Amino acid sequence: MGSTRAKIAVDAMGGDRAPEEIVAGALRATEELDVDVLLVGDCPRMRSLLGTRADSPHLELVPAEGVIEMDEEPLVALKRKPEASINVAMDLVKQQRAEAVVSAGHSGAAMAAALLRLGRIKGIDRPAIGALLPTMVAGKSVIVLDVGAIVDCRPKYLEQFAIMGTVYSKYVLDVNEPKVGLLNIGEESSKGNDLAARAHKLLAANERIPFIGNAEGRDVLSGEFDVIVCDGFVGNILLKFAEAVGEVMLQIVREELPQGLRGQLGTAMLKPNLRRIKQRMDHAEHGGALLFGVAGICVIGHGSSQAPSIFNAIRFAQEAIDHRVLERIRSYYSNDCEAGTATVARATDG
Amino acid sequence: MGSTRAKIAVDAMGGDRAPEEIVAGALRATEELDVDVLLVGDCPRMRSLLGTRADSPHLELVPAEGVIEMDEEPLVALKRKPEASINVAMDLVKQQRAEAVVSAGHSGAAMAAALLRLGRIKGIDRPAIGALLPTMVAGKSVIVLDVGAIVDCRPKYLEQFAIMGTVYSKYVLDVNEPKVGLLNIGEESSKGNDLAARAHKLLAANERIPFIGNAEGRDVLSGEFDVIVCDGFVGNILLKFAEAVGEVMLQIVREELPQGLRGQLGTAMLKPNLRRIKQRMDHAEHGGALLFGVAGICVIGHGSSQAPSIFNAIRFAQEAIDHRVLERIRSYYSNDCEAGTATVARATDG
Repeated sequence: MGSTRAKIAVDAMGGDRAPEEIVAGALRATEELDVDVLLVGDCPRMRSLLGTRADSPHLELVPAEGVIEMDEEPLVALKRKPEASINVAMDLVKQQRAEAVVSAGHSGAAMAAALLRLGRIKGIDRPAIGALLPTMVAGKSVIVLDVGAIVDCRPKYLEQFAIMGTVYSKYVLDVNEPKVGLLNIGEESSKGNDLAARAHKLLAANERIPFIGNAEGRDVLSGEFDVIVCDGFVGNILLKFAEAVGEVMLQIVREELPQGLRGQLGTAMLKPNLRRIKQRMDHAEHGGALLFGVAGICVIGHGSSQAPSIFNAIRFAQEAIDHRVLERIRSYYSNDCEAGTATVARATDG
Repeated sequence: MGSTRAKIAVDAMGGDRAPEEIVAGALRATEELDVDVLLVGDCPRMRSLLGTRADSPHLELVPAEGVIEMDEEPLVALKRKPEASINVAMDLVKQQRAEAVVSAGHSGAAMAAALLRLGRIKGIDRPAIGALLPTMVAGKSVIVLDVGAIVDCRPKYLEQFAIMGTVYSKYVLDVNEPKVGLLNIGEESSKGNDLAARAHKLLAANERIPFIGNAEGRDVLSGEFDVIVCDGFVGNILLKFAEAVGEVMLQIVREELPQGLRGQLGTAMLKPNLRRIKQRMDHAEHGGALLFGVAGICVIGHGSSQAPSIFNAIRFAQEAIDHRVLERIRSYYSNDCEAGTATVARATDG
């Protein structure tokens, strides 16, 4: 396998459309991106799906037995199935044979496997799942974390989420001076529930976090914020709502647009433009969420992921690898004066 | 004033566009709806806005002095300004001169004034703000409560929200067998934060609540649920996000649709249909949120409300009056065998 290409372990057996769609997405990634993929799962089955392309120099098949089903309790299942694909994929990162894991399987199991097999980054108490949402500003995304890892958060977890999100925004999304917001129900610092009020104080006091204040629900997609922190309960509800609302809107457009003769004619003329609108609203374009705070890059895809989402999830992992997200977070917490620390600090001065 | 028409006190001074837009919306309501409006505020100013129409038999001007500003602390301000428009409007309900209050002013102040002047319904520990959201099913709305009254909730508050929402859904929205959901991050009963897990038990155990289980973020607009309960922190973030996301989507449509020559032509042909899409996505159509649990009907409008929103807010109040929402909630808690109790119970049997 090529040595400068990012090496990504893909859980071929996780997800509603596994392994067919996962394998197809992974194959495309090896062809179009600078990545080598280690496909983890049922080798005979993967080989029959790949055909002659199983010989690609950028693809390696790694055997695993079984998969964690969606209705299984993660910790119990991970223990009972040590050779399950998600366990084997995490081990590849631990053994440094891969730099990242991509899975569209049971997200709780992926998180638990990452915690058990890779552990946390020193300085981070709890992991967070970060999701990218498009904003009103074309080409600009906001990273929201946590969207489902930890439902009952302490204020210091949110402070840590803010640091990890800032690193991501700065180095992967290339935002010069990231702006961090706390998801809340009003602009004033005293607003919100107990967690929000206490987290606000911590965020405001930490001069290495470029905190600009509370972000209300209406501000999430405004483009005013680059990073938004919240507990995993609120974040998960918001994310799932955001994903579904695009569908609702598209349906309204589909119902109303072709009404009447002029409507039918006009709609026919607009087909390519409507396709572009669907693309901008479609969550498949975003590919998944990143698990922050564990000692490895893990991208968690939707259970419903098809090949294009898997392709995007692999690209998402590749970007995190290429921009050394892990090292930069570690460096922040090791308090040395290397890149990570110094530049996160600089963002707050700007 | 006509005796069978609903009598609604409107806070003419509250809101960014007060009193002009409030007065205009109220005037239209007296003309098109079966309501009498008591306009509360600066009488000379209201009279000059109304001109000859100040003499309408369905309009009464009630003097007030001052208004609670958006940056004021509600309790302090309400005390310092006993003659502020929102205080006077609530007093009209207390004196039974009006049956409802509509205000687009400081929503915290409206809630505090309602609590102080009208008190709570017996059996209700905390009020809730309920908002109607459109769903994927044409013509069907879901009522979400609480969207901002109480940020740190106890499980029993959510149980009470469920009862009030069920009454509203059944009698005002005319849903034969309302389905109640608990906003949560997964389908299983054990999911969620501490509040959600405990509230789930209470809701499941109360056989007078037609509880069908957890509603995830993606289910809010699906039309599968008629009533969704949550704490005011999550609900407020969700509501404000939902309102803003419509704008984001419309902007994407506006940007992408007219691209190219065919795009321009097609878009021109679709003007009336696009207007209808905007209408379905526009929150102004919904008119506001209802304050539940206080001993009076109170509709809280957006600060940015213009005349059409005020008109809709007045209609919203009228519907709650006409369908005797207050009496039905009271009747549930007084445990007698009248309409309210018996029929909420029946909904659970269906």
